[in-house]
Amino acid sequence: MSTTITLYPLSNYPFASKDQQLEEDPSVVARLQRLEHDYEQYGMRRTVEGIMLVHEHGHPHVLLTQVGSAFFKLPGDYLKPHESDEQGLKARMHLRLGPDPPGDAADGEMKVEEDGAGADEWEVSDVIGQFWRPNFESFMYPYKPAHITKPKEVKTWHLIQLPETRILTVPKNQKIVALPLFELYDNAIRYGPQLSSLPALLSRVNFVYAS
Amino acid sequence: MSTTITLYPLSNYPFASKDQQLEEDPSVVARLQRLEHDYEQYGMRRTVEGIMLVHEHGHPHVLLTQVGSAFFKLPGDYLKPHESDEQGLKARMHLRLGPDPPGDAADGEMKVEEDGAGADEWEVSDVIGQFWRPNFESFMYPYKPAHITKPKEVKTWHLIQLPETRILTVPKNQKIVALPLFELYDNAIRYGPQLSSLPALLSRVNFVYAS
Repeated sequence: MSTTITLYPLSNYPFASKDQQLEEDPSVVARLQRLEHDYEQYGMRRTVEGIMLVHEHGHPHVLLTQVGSAFFKLPGDYLKPHESDEQGLKARMHLRLGPDPPGDAADGEMKVEEDGAGADEWEVSDVIGQFWRPNFESFMYPYKPAHITKPKEVKTWHLIQLPETRILTVPKNQKIVALPLFELYDNAIRYGPQLSSLPALLSRVNFVYAS
Repeated sequence: MSTTITLYPLSNYPFASKDQQLEEDPSVVARLQRLEHDYEQYGMRRTVEGIMLVHEHGHPHVLLTQVGSAFFKLPGDYLKPHESDEQGLKARMHLRLGPDPPGDAADGEMKVEEDGAGADEWEVSDVIGQFWRPNFESFMYPYKPAHITKPKEVKTWHLIQLPETRILTVPKNQKIVALPLFELYDNAIRYGPQLSSLPALLSRVNFVYAS
């Protein structure tokens, strides 16, 4: 019944750089407007994000992307209506952190479906948490609020089992940071209620430390 | 892979009263001293607690015991060295909330092993979270802190699948409260970092609302 993830050292994952990937929407307002427009057409948005874990100094760290110096993001994105969680997340992980595809690559979104082979190099494991957006607003909750029969978005966090080693190719406008779980725990003031809950969500997972 | 819990209305669980059950130790200091003494004899303490869920006003609520008006506790206790998580938690749930046993019952701890039949009426489900105590101190964390090879205690939270209806018999010095998940979420200031993480820990659980 229990979930096992093997952790390798952070140093097993050298970083490379690729063309920048801009946010699809230039502002939170624009993003919520797109959500509302998409909702009318397709119904509830499904978003998937990947939890990549490594170890350093004998402690688990989670890999987050940082855009500018402003905020931390888990790699992932929302899915197309027909995509499964697993295949969709694999494709997004490949898009975000896989090698730069050959040729012109100004618009990252267009590459998802061209790279099925690379996407399959990502191993998607258990769901560890979910958050629902009841309205076309910023707030999300780890439950469907009462009297909300039609949430507008559900975001699902999947564990990613990293291979023993891999080059992570990061868009130029972003960087990857490895945050220790002890930094996130009980630190909603700095990381918000979602990311600060990650250590508790991982507490039932059996970690194997490998070299 | 996903865990399903059926929620019944809070009103399906009438409360009854039984003899008081006092804390084994009169203070936090005494409790930590006993932990240290037990650790020398038996090694790491294993504690189990049960997460009982009901619904009210269309929203999941967790059942907690309140001692006086001071603090909230999940039902459970530490295990004897030979006890399994599941059998041990069943026995503790029965001790805490099962019917008053016949005869004299001043010391609740003595009753655990006499009531195997009643204990088996409790259905223990998945682990949703764990907390480790690295030292003989109050703090617990949802991970083993780095360089702590020998934690002193591990506390495991198990989901309890309640039956459709049951009388919950509560010691006189305690009461049962049903707290909605929205009250706990992002509320570490009031409930501490452990209980406030419960809504996130439950977010991956599929709830079925029954009547």
